Amino acid sequence: MKKLINSPETLLEDALAGMAAAHPGLRVNAGARVITRSSGKSPGKVAVISGGGSGHEPLHGGFVGLGMLDAACPGEVFTSPVPDQVLAAARAADTGAGVLLVVKNYTGDVLNFQVAAELAEDEGITVETVLVNDDVAVEDSTHTAGRRGTGATLFVEKIAGALAEQGADLATVAKTAREVNSASRSFAVALTSCTTPAAGRPGFELPEDEIEVGVGIHGEPGRRRERIRPAKEIVADALDAILTDQPLSADDETIVLVNGLGGTPLLELYVVYNEVATALADRGIRIARRLVGNYVTSLDMAGVSLTLCRADAAMLALWDAPVDTPALHWGG
Amino acid sequence: MKKLINSPETLLEDALAGMAAAHPGLRVNAGARVITRSSGKSPGKVAVISGGGSGHEPLHGGFVGLGMLDAACPGEVFTSPVPDQVLAAARAADTGAGVLLVVKNYTGDVLNFQVAAELAEDEGITVETVLVNDDVAVEDSTHTAGRRGTGATLFVEKIAGALAEQGADLATVAKTAREVNSASRSFAVALTSCTTPAAGRPGFELPEDEIEVGVGIHGEPGRRRERIRPAKEIVADALDAILTDQPLSADDETIVLVNGLGGTPLLELYVVYNEVATALADRGIRIARRLVGNYVTSLDMAGVSLTLCRADAAMLALWDAPVDTPALHWGG
Repeated sequence: MKKLINSPETLLEDALAGMAAAHPGLRVNAGARVITRSSGKSPGKVAVISGGGSGHEPLHGGFVGLGMLDAACPGEVFTSPVPDQVLAAARAADTGAGVLLVVKNYTGDVLNFQVAAELAEDEGITVETVLVNDDVAVEDSTHTAGRRGTGATLFVEKIAGALAEQGADLATVAKTAREVNSASRSFAVALTSCTTPAAGRPGFELPEDEIEVGVGIHGEPGRRRERIRPAKEIVADALDAILTDQPLSADDETIVLVNGLGGTPLLELYVVYNEVATALADRGIRIARRLVGNYVTSLDMAGVSLTLCRADAAMLALWDAPVDTPALHWGG
Repeated sequence: MKKLINSPETLLEDALAGMAAAHPGLRVNAGARVITRSSGKSPGKVAVISGGGSGHEPLHGGFVGLGMLDAACPGEVFTSPVPDQVLAAARAADTGAGVLLVVKNYTGDVLNFQVAAELAEDEGITVETVLVNDDVAVEDSTHTAGRRGTGATLFVEKIAGALAEQGADLATVAKTAREVNSASRSFAVALTSCTTPAAGRPGFELPEDEIEVGVGIHGEPGRRRERIRPAKEIVADALDAILTDQPLSADDETIVLVNGLGGTPLLELYVVYNEVATALADRGIRIARRLVGNYVTSLDMAGVSLTLCRADAAMLALWDAPVDTPALHWGG
């Protein structure tokens, strides 16, 4: 294993110190492992909080800032944050208006966030939880009951974050967050495995000419393995999987995420986006907004995930609202 | 070779179509292979133009937009754009105020941009050229006489672009661009090779436990190979190389780029940035501004480059000026 780290044991501590030094807009509590906005709390504002295992950067810490998250709590690589950590994030971000916990649907995360929610409620913090489960590839995967949560997390965090910034109450923010999740579907393809520093070797083995179709963001198995094929065919299959699960009509507007899994050159992501845009245009589906880049990664995995969100006018307006975080910045 | 492409022959065409579809702020002339701002020309403004081989995305096309480049001309992967392409970019961007060509110091680029400059001058376009040669690792590398041009290209494009946006004349923009290059030094380390689609196999071979110290952005050989070591030691060596070449004192302010080469997780780049920040603090050198991410890549290469620019107050003000491009966005 070759990685730019000091040791697997200090990786998260070192990376959080680097994040803190790199981004003046973030306040990193290294002891509690909680990232908040350095601007502090906005009185009366609902707090939007997320977290999960590390290794998916910029998710979630890179999405802390105006118009998106109020706090993030990163666990060890591919490991849920512990309840105390989530509780610390809730305490750090709550203004009294309550907190929305954005939780990706993995068994460990679901459990730990639930315990944390109960602890927070015991302290008088009002909590709502949205479970993100957008990945149509498989049901009941490794570490998951039901569907995995992947790229839609970004959509939920951006849109719910914008609504919270505008002063909406907790019930409204939670309702919209759930609507965004319900309107989103994802599918991913891996060209290579990924290597966690603790394991020191790839999480799975892929032959030199094969890809994993429907892979999870921790390298969980997908639907099948197949020979590498032209990007056009890989994209067509991924879109078929998404659109079979959630048919879209010609009147629908979408937000599209073409997301690199960490080891994929941007040049290839543009090739993929071109195929997505062409294929959706052929079906009469409109792409109203799009992102192309590394947003929800799987360490050094080469591959791509596609996420489509069927967005109404209100969601698009919230998408367009100003955002100022390390990884997303526009408007304002 | 596994890549998300349709074929090596159509890669650039497909990627440019994807870029055009993804970024409404860009206008992509697919035939001429020239990327300009969709907002059109700003009357009387000096045009800042760059280009070079593809495979280093987001450089250069991702830096086209307000406050940075007016045009970019991407060649085939790791291959200089041809003179006609550079000429087309100059024609597309010139307002009559002249053009600054930002050229990375590789023999093919130097030659082709020079021919293009002469052709443009023949057409009455005033041209200045700045040669970027910041990489202290080696002199007279593969494809290069003198030093290679790498991460400082971003600094030159951002700062010269901001000055041009403010209405400075061509001589002033060119002078500042050269000052930024002179004030910048880079050093890169590769953990893996990279694979061009045309070759279909890695450009060089690295044993499973070795790194290439001083690598070039096309995989050119560095100073030596050595066993992988803790990030702290790798960073110390890279900074030594940079600071031996350009000593900095405690009064100096710097802009620092910790740049992923394409296949490196952001988590590791934060570890590296933490070591850079700590090491520079130990020497009393101040980091006034910093970027951490994938900006000047080498396809799928895992590794990192460090670039330090000794920046005066004027440079910092230009760095802070608004920029609105696909890859850099702040202020305004």
